[in-house]
Amino acid sequence: MITASKSDAVSQDGLLPDLPNGPLSEYRRKASFNWKDMAMFLEDEDIIAFKNKIFSTLESDPLFYRQPGVDLPLEKYRELTFLRCKKIFEYNFLTFEATMEKPQKMLVLINCLGMYDWSLSTKYFLDTQVFGVAIGNTGSERHETILHQTQNMEIRNPKTLLPMPGVMVGDIGRKLGQNGLDNGFAMFHNVRIPYENLLNRTGDISSSGNYTSAYKDPKQRLGASLGTLSSGRVSIISMVVTNLKLAITIAIRFSATRRQFGPTEKEEIPVLEYQLQQWRLIPYLAAAYALDYFSVGFFFNLIELQIGILMKDRSPRQAELGKEIHALSCAGKPLASWTAQHGAQECREACGGHGFLAMNRLGDIRNDNDPNCTYEGDNNVLLQQTSNYLLGLVQSIHEDNAPCESPLGSIHFLNDYKTILKRKFTASTIRECLDCAVALDAYKWLVCYLLRESHDKLQQEKQRAANDFDARNNSQVYYCRSLALAFIEHTVLQRYYDYTHDPSTPGSLQPVLKKLCCLYGLWSLNKHIAVLYQGGYFAGELPGRIVQDAILDLCAQLKDDAVSLVDAIAPPDFILNSPIAKADGELYKNLWSAVLQGEKVLERPSWWPEFCCNKPVIGKPRSQL
Amino acid sequence: MITASKSDAVSQDGLLPDLPNGPLSEYRRKASFNWKDMAMFLEDEDIIAFKNKIFSTLESDPLFYRQPGVDLPLEKYRELTFLRCKKIFEYNFLTFEATMEKPQKMLVLINCLGMYDWSLSTKYFLDTQVFGVAIGNTGSERHETILHQTQNMEIRNPKTLLPMPGVMVGDIGRKLGQNGLDNGFAMFHNVRIPYENLLNRTGDISSSGNYTSAYKDPKQRLGASLGTLSSGRVSIISMVVTNLKLAITIAIRFSATRRQFGPTEKEEIPVLEYQLQQWRLIPYLAAAYALDYFSVGFFFNLIELQIGILMKDRSPRQAELGKEIHALSCAGKPLASWTAQHGAQECREACGGHGFLAMNRLGDIRNDNDPNCTYEGDNNVLLQQTSNYLLGLVQSIHEDNAPCESPLGSIHFLNDYKTILKRKFTASTIRECLDCAVALDAYKWLVCYLLRESHDKLQQEKQRAANDFDARNNSQVYYCRSLALAFIEHTVLQRYYDYTHDPSTPGSLQPVLKKLCCLYGLWSLNKHIAVLYQGGYFAGELPGRIVQDAILDLCAQLKDDAVSLVDAIAPPDFILNSPIAKADGELYKNLWSAVLQGEKVLERPSWWPEFCCNKPVIGKPRSQL
Repeated sequence: MITASKSDAVSQDGLLPDLPNGPLSEYRRKASFNWKDMAMFLEDEDIIAFKNKIFSTLESDPLFYRQPGVDLPLEKYRELTFLRCKKIFEYNFLTFEATMEKPQKMLVLINCLGMYDWSLSTKYFLDTQVFGVAIGNTGSERHETILHQTQNMEIRNPKTLLPMPGVMVGDIGRKLGQNGLDNGFAMFHNVRIPYENLLNRTGDISSSGNYTSAYKDPKQRLGASLGTLSSGRVSIISMVVTNLKLAITIAIRFSATRRQFGPTEKEEIPVLEYQLQQWRLIPYLAAAYALDYFSVGFFFNLIELQIGILMKDRSPRQAELGKEIHALSCAGKPLASWTAQHGAQECREACGGHGFLAMNRLGDIRNDNDPNCTYEGDNNVLLQQTSNYLLGLVQSIHEDNAPCESPLGSIHFLNDYKTILKRKFTASTIRECLDCAVALDAYKWLVCYLLRESHDKLQQEKQRAANDFDARNNSQVYYCRSLALAFIEHTVLQRYYDYTHDPSTPGSLQPVLKKLCCLYGLWSLNKHIAVLYQGGYFAGELPGRIVQDAILDLCAQLKDDAVSLVDAIAPPDFILNSPIAKADGELYKNLWSAVLQGEKVLERPSWWPEFCCNKPVIGKPRSQL
Repeated sequence: MITASKSDAVSQDGLLPDLPNGPLSEYRRKASFNWKDMAMFLEDEDIIAFKNKIFSTLESDPLFYRQPGVDLPLEKYRELTFLRCKKIFEYNFLTFEATMEKPQKMLVLINCLGMYDWSLSTKYFLDTQVFGVAIGNTGSERHETILHQTQNMEIRNPKTLLPMPGVMVGDIGRKLGQNGLDNGFAMFHNVRIPYENLLNRTGDISSSGNYTSAYKDPKQRLGASLGTLSSGRVSIISMVVTNLKLAITIAIRFSATRRQFGPTEKEEIPVLEYQLQQWRLIPYLAAAYALDYFSVGFFFNLIELQIGILMKDRSPRQAELGKEIHALSCAGKPLASWTAQHGAQECREACGGHGFLAMNRLGDIRNDNDPNCTYEGDNNVLLQQTSNYLLGLVQSIHEDNAPCESPLGSIHFLNDYKTILKRKFTASTIRECLDCAVALDAYKWLVCYLLRESHDKLQQEKQRAANDFDARNNSQVYYCRSLALAFIEHTVLQRYYDYTHDPSTPGSLQPVLKKLCCLYGLWSLNKHIAVLYQGGYFAGELPGRIVQDAILDLCAQLKDDAVSLVDAIAPPDFILNSPIAKADGELYKNLWSAVLQGEKVLERPSWWPEFCCNKPVIGKPRSQL
């Protein structure tokens, strides 16, 4: 069912090229919607054109060419990443003015570079954003002039790049991923750092050695820093969702073209036709859509916060916004990065041996995604920030005196805390569960229940433990940690629910988007079913069974849309860089061609003579065991 | 509490050297048992001496030296692996006679080489075992003489190693792991394979072109092949458990020496003191112990099967043994390889940025372990073999006429199927849950319940679906797949329970071993709690809560034993090859020393002049966002 009007088709023509015919065409024909409509709905024309420009620029530049199957030594890879990064600076895809006009474009640029190679993207991101923003947000006017040079200043001689006297700099060596990026260490021995280098926005030291701060209240000073701390995590959410989109694109296109066995001996069917394969992959496709929507909206929330900081807004709303964004980013980063990490591993396994072949890229995606679980705050540790935020609301909830209010509304439903806790699961058929409101209601109960349980647990532990430190530590597992995850899942789902049910969402896309929303909701909820039973929200065999049946039903309903759903989010073949997942679906031809392009692929290894001479005399090789 | 008698200490002295004093000593002092007693209990002196010999030989040979932080090009790594493999042949650690006397030693050798480097181990394993055994088990007398040459025969010219006419051989390129091993492809164009090369043990073709077989019954012929198919999987179980032991050793030693925060500002505490860290790691330690025991015992079961095959035993017992081992290996490989894969990822994350540094080895362990989830049968697909075996028992269970009997007894409890299904969870305190029988009983109910549900589901689907193929496919998720996993978890737990409760297990070790057993049981069971509630085995808040409290309680009880538990299974530092996990516990000194040994670690990169010239003119770098 193709629903695009003719005028749509015209406006899309320049932006979204038709996909080649081939083994994927059959699934594309069966899709319930037009992938171009979806792509145009997910991003506006300006953003799509911006992405196209970046992608086509990289594809046209030989510096960005990648030969499949070539083994790049670490130092060469780093040099190449450096040269590419420099070239990205030269391309100047995004002027300062364009960023100011549409800040989202900075994130789009980071993600486009990341889709190409995360080492390059991270290098660019660190150089332009993290480093610049850290100084911009924590320094003052006097740091403007020195800014271009700071990176080399004091550490290395800017001409020779040799370390300055008293400085020892070195390389930490190979990492599990992102190896185009060189990470180092620095040690200082009796090095004097000029007083002017002190980043003095929130606190300063006078020439007489006294500490001064524009903020009198230390809590307010902390609050002022929280916004800066959130921005890295908000960006990471978007980056890891990009990884999930790459991984699921590869796995879905592979599964739609890889055939194995069938009901008759005559023809083999695509592995995507198997319920098990659908269940392994399609929920991650739904997660990619739901989390992508969250990441974009959440970025706009961050922009609002940052504007307030720039405007020196010291209103209570601004402070609350900082706290809420902090709470959401501290759980959003764990949820998104783990979903991408587990999703990438599942995609790799779902592609079998093809997934284990490096050139198909699932390994790099997983490995490059991995550090997102650690940096900008270890996932497990970060979740405590979110649960602390929620536990801080319990008193006002109990006393019914101060309503739960927050600028983004993520905690508003807690005003119905007592009513919600009295609710039970009422659906009795699979059909009812196909309404996403069912999962959403269950999540509301789940968050309230875990909030109550976590609060009670913490109180018990405080009475038992020697100190608050221990009490808090002993309330994490099964309580505060679960609470933070359930809360962010609810937030993501609520936002996606509102979006997919909004009347402005095109009617041709609503059905498939609602299915994705419902699948994401039920699949996420399924991990908490034990708690739903434990707390009495579920009772008897039926609820667990119909939720699971609904998940499988939705997977089956979505399997014919899956290829078009990835088409709408996939970068061009050159960027995706996975022979088993090209848009033409010619799995074996493309893979074979890529393998043969490898270096010396048909040659004997250089050390072949070693194989032929001095053969060791070994015992009887036939073992009976 | 040190319980070793003096005579023990003497006999151990030569075999198990004392561990160096250092930051780990405090945990070692707090342990409830002597790690040497544990090591001597887990393996006999002969095996320990054999391992020592392998380890010390490798450590003494410069060919096996590994410089930390050196970037090895793919071809060099393969050459080195080849040369090392050749050297292993020369060392001839295991004669044919010694293997016959104690077949377990072959597996020990494979694992020792794997602890050093899986590429080497796999290469050795493929050359000596898989290739040889395949020909030995499927060929006949006439293949004995050609055996040495078969590998090169027909494919390459044995002198030049160039491909024979009509043959195209090439390299498939880099993989996600095990890159010291070169994997290739071969294509044949009009190549004639000599008739004598046909592997004709179970089926042959006469010179006139007629098919003949020693087995008249095709099922019997299939059964005869199953044993051969199982051996790879049985070996893999042992290999992946080895990976889990390596990963958990690194993470536990790191966590016992890495300090962060504390109840007071004065002193930071080891991260192992945090409940969250304990919960993330200690269950994997318990899993390593329980699965290790299973893997060793299961290997002996396989030996029994193989002896039967050699002896041409065609008794019903032999056939049943083949089927049972097939069913257990088809679920045992998935369970063990996934546990190792998830465990390695959890260990990497639990070590934070240190875990992400390649030299600390958690990445290699995870990456080298990964293909075990795919080869010798994709994990998800394999599980169907196990559920089919169990579903095949349903009729006799229902009719009460033929008791469930199997040579290894893994299905005996199904004779009480009806009684078991009537049972409920009866424990009401954490204390009761600390008895491992509680988890074991729950597992018995779980398997029976999932068997009934899977059977019913399959019958329903058969009525609904167009064919049996679809019916079976649509009964996997939440049914047959869960059944196979629950069944193997029960088997592993039952065996470990019997072992840890056996009177012959030393009294000094029983308490800690029973805790490991109980923790493994409850932690595994915890993933099925939704089903326990759904099916009515659990009711109300209490069961879920006390199971989880018991898990945390056991983690806390085991945290002071954790270091000694890994000491008992850890290889020497040279083999473990992880600076953050050396036996002396000098985390930072060792890491620093390893970083500084890296190639050109303090040098500017060769391309540094590029950095200084032609600096791109970029826009204002300070972004406000």
